[in-house]
Amino acid sequence: MANNEDQFKRVISHAKEYGYIFGSSEIYDGLSAVYDYGQQGVELKNNIREYWWRSMVYMHQNIVGIDAAILMHPTTWKASGHVDAFNDPLIDNKDSKKRYRADVLIEDHAEKLEVKAQKEIAKAKKRFGDAFDEAQFVSTHPRVIKYREQKQEILDRMARLLESEDLAGVKALIEELEIADPISGSKNWTEVRQFNLMFGTKLGASAESATDLYLRPETAQGIFVNFLNVQKTGRMKIPFGIAQTGKAFRNEIVARQFIFRMREFEQMEMQFFVRPGEEMKWYEYWKETRLKWHLSLGLGKENYRFHDHEKLAHYANAATDIEFDFPFGFKELEGIHSRTDFDLKAHEEFSGKKLQFFDPELNESYVPYVVETSIGLDRMFLAILSKSLQEETLEDGSVRTVLKLPAILAPVKAAVLPLVKKDGLPEIAQKIIEELQWDYNVIYDEKDAVGRRYRRQDAAGTPFCITVDHQSKEDGTVTLRNRDTMDQQRISIEDVAKHLSKSMAYKEWLS
Amino acid sequence: MANNEDQFKRVISHAKEYGYIFGSSEIYDGLSAVYDYGQQGVELKNNIREYWWRSMVYMHQNIVGIDAAILMHPTTWKASGHVDAFNDPLIDNKDSKKRYRADVLIEDHAEKLEVKAQKEIAKAKKRFGDAFDEAQFVSTHPRVIKYREQKQEILDRMARLLESEDLAGVKALIEELEIADPISGSKNWTEVRQFNLMFGTKLGASAESATDLYLRPETAQGIFVNFLNVQKTGRMKIPFGIAQTGKAFRNEIVARQFIFRMREFEQMEMQFFVRPGEEMKWYEYWKETRLKWHLSLGLGKENYRFHDHEKLAHYANAATDIEFDFPFGFKELEGIHSRTDFDLKAHEEFSGKKLQFFDPELNESYVPYVVETSIGLDRMFLAILSKSLQEETLEDGSVRTVLKLPAILAPVKAAVLPLVKKDGLPEIAQKIIEELQWDYNVIYDEKDAVGRRYRRQDAAGTPFCITVDHQSKEDGTVTLRNRDTMDQQRISIEDVAKHLSKSMAYKEWLS
Repeated sequence: MANNEDQFKRVISHAKEYGYIFGSSEIYDGLSAVYDYGQQGVELKNNIREYWWRSMVYMHQNIVGIDAAILMHPTTWKASGHVDAFNDPLIDNKDSKKRYRADVLIEDHAEKLEVKAQKEIAKAKKRFGDAFDEAQFVSTHPRVIKYREQKQEILDRMARLLESEDLAGVKALIEELEIADPISGSKNWTEVRQFNLMFGTKLGASAESATDLYLRPETAQGIFVNFLNVQKTGRMKIPFGIAQTGKAFRNEIVARQFIFRMREFEQMEMQFFVRPGEEMKWYEYWKETRLKWHLSLGLGKENYRFHDHEKLAHYANAATDIEFDFPFGFKELEGIHSRTDFDLKAHEEFSGKKLQFFDPELNESYVPYVVETSIGLDRMFLAILSKSLQEETLEDGSVRTVLKLPAILAPVKAAVLPLVKKDGLPEIAQKIIEELQWDYNVIYDEKDAVGRRYRRQDAAGTPFCITVDHQSKEDGTVTLRNRDTMDQQRISIEDVAKHLSKSMAYKEWLS
Repeated sequence: MANNEDQFKRVISHAKEYGYIFGSSEIYDGLSAVYDYGQQGVELKNNIREYWWRSMVYMHQNIVGIDAAILMHPTTWKASGHVDAFNDPLIDNKDSKKRYRADVLIEDHAEKLEVKAQKEIAKAKKRFGDAFDEAQFVSTHPRVIKYREQKQEILDRMARLLESEDLAGVKALIEELEIADPISGSKNWTEVRQFNLMFGTKLGASAESATDLYLRPETAQGIFVNFLNVQKTGRMKIPFGIAQTGKAFRNEIVARQFIFRMREFEQMEMQFFVRPGEEMKWYEYWKETRLKWHLSLGLGKENYRFHDHEKLAHYANAATDIEFDFPFGFKELEGIHSRTDFDLKAHEEFSGKKLQFFDPELNESYVPYVVETSIGLDRMFLAILSKSLQEETLEDGSVRTVLKLPAILAPVKAAVLPLVKKDGLPEIAQKIIEELQWDYNVIYDEKDAVGRRYRRQDAAGTPFCITVDHQSKEDGTVTLRNRDTMDQQRISIEDVAKHLSKSMAYKEWLS
């Protein structure tokens, strides 16, 4: 098992080298926390989106999709609470003029205590060698215990101050801890202020008539404002869901961890409208259903866990995360939230319009409760990419790099390789391509020895190689090589499409 | 043939009634020139995108895709010329404080002369009845001739003024024509100024360190800045193409015609990189290839025409539009442009980086020339929707509304209908659904008489209805009804999937 930090670096450089992810506008030295998807990345991203969409919309007769615009009427964000409460606490250093997230400054300071504890542990490890019992050491060594207690106390105090929105208290804590600007060393701080994370823009040309708009910070509200349009024109009956994928934007001050937290990102969300009082049943249903979806990709059950929220957002009465074991540890991959009737009621209030459903069985109208499933497409991409990238030592002692993407999501489904560039083999390979490309993204590769081409396709994540050799001319067969097992089987050219079709059937993957 | 304006109104109201397109944030009375796609619309839009993507990326071994971010480094738009030259000429009325596009004010004024000519024609038509020869009348009647000459002269003068960027001249023309504010009637105008159409936003929190960004006004530049990344990591050899679909934004002052010109829209673009000097060959190739793609959908050859640009943009040495016969006349649907090496050279200059290709056959490096194909996804949607919506008078004299969408693009591929809600027929229908939904978006409908359900699916654009009746229980057959011909054929339940698969095969449509 590779060291996690090394694995993360390997994922990032592999993603660039094989055309999965490039920094945005790289020729202009990039734009922080924004990324572009390359020729392989766009296919993987599209395939993930499609896998989600089919499982949600096609496979559920009571779920339909929509595609709302990124630009919405600004009152939407008043009603949702984003204008007033979607903030980060910021502080400026008066000398360096640099701006920081106050909570991150405090977290980083607390982390220094952990570093001190780690140093004590390392020292003891060196001294005691094989006899060292780390668990015992950290639970008994006074300095380690003290550092960790101090760290926890700082984090707890900060959490309480932020929860009560005591910004003066946050500043006082920074001063008490004597936190200095990490660049200039100055401790000359401004007050802490809340900074809204929405990107603003202006619609219209005239200064007087221009409307202040926001780039949506989440896709969910596009579903809520369209709730009644979809319900009525789609003749939907409760319980029913509306699914949506699309871009959202957050002006993060500190964006980190590659594509895990980006300023521009894509969400895949589904809002499920239910009878008030039945939301916990559906919350449990969606927890189970969504975890099953993740497991269907075969990345390994041990990489997922639920993390129930103890502290609930103002709109929720139950919430959990499906966490994934990223190279930097278990982190949120998907959220499942019981949002009550908070959003629809807020939009009723701000729009003056009724957003209710007449339930023929109960013979009454009500504002439905909502259970949401919300997953970051880019995070899902990172989860799959980082878990699929593996190095294997082969029997002959050589090491191969292989990207074991789930075949249904792989950017290129098959590479068709003529063994040599002559004797009519390229022509046979091209004919195979011509037949397959109606249904699959396949590529042709004739450069280098075939062993090298296999390695290249392994690293690129292509699940199958189809090799045309001299025997192909005689009996119409080719070699089908499996990326993961490296097994090769001889099959007739006519059966190639059938073989791919079975490997790429949604029925095989989703059931 | 329906009156065009009526047809356009019918399309807009049908689009809303059947869940294709809703106004954005309708509960807040909307956002001008922004629209949301409903449960049917999102599927049609996704299917159009997929149809384009497969024909471009899967079917061309030398074309790959990318997905660049909407937010890009601002120097991108300096290099592309958008910061300096992506403008509309605006004028304010000092009394009403309203702002207008100066060219639109003049165009609307010129149009009034056409209205006068039309009145003369209508008068004469009424007088002469069946004997009226309109062609002869308009070529000889002195007032009609005069109105039309005056109109053309105004438009020509305006075009010359705009081309020479003579904004004072544009204002003088407005005053000479005594154009009044259409709302207040005031002729008290400000100077004409250029207004940039890009939406601006700010990245980062601090006023000093914030970066001014733009929402991209076109997707093409995301391809150019990634040219070398894709060429190198994808081992591409010239000629090759990079395809992209995605949102773009333009702060249009006057946005009109439903989803034809929106402030937020989606493009499907492909930039094809070729040897300098070979661009005209590829320009012709792409003209032909793209028209063939449009014709493959079967909407009728007579609805398309080329319109070659006489006046070329600064970056182009040849350009044509594929125009489509929209309800408001022939208008641009897709552009095919020979962009020379303008963009790559500009990015070389602004980035200081070489954006060249080493051509092994020529043994030299050069900046490639580019042929672009660029289509508005929303326009394509409108073209298909408006041409597909038809009213047919049936043999019994009744009228049916039918949305004859190309089956490969239809949102729902089949509706499965139990003839009655009992006798085990719903269960059989559900079993058919369970089998089909792995591969197709299908729906179940048991409400109302079956004839009414057929009409509903006709209007919704569903190409097939599969009806389960009592005979189904006996012999395992169902009725397959064709939306366009209304033919019904009896087939076995096992053959339903096969039948859909043949109708929805890309090979059948794209070849």
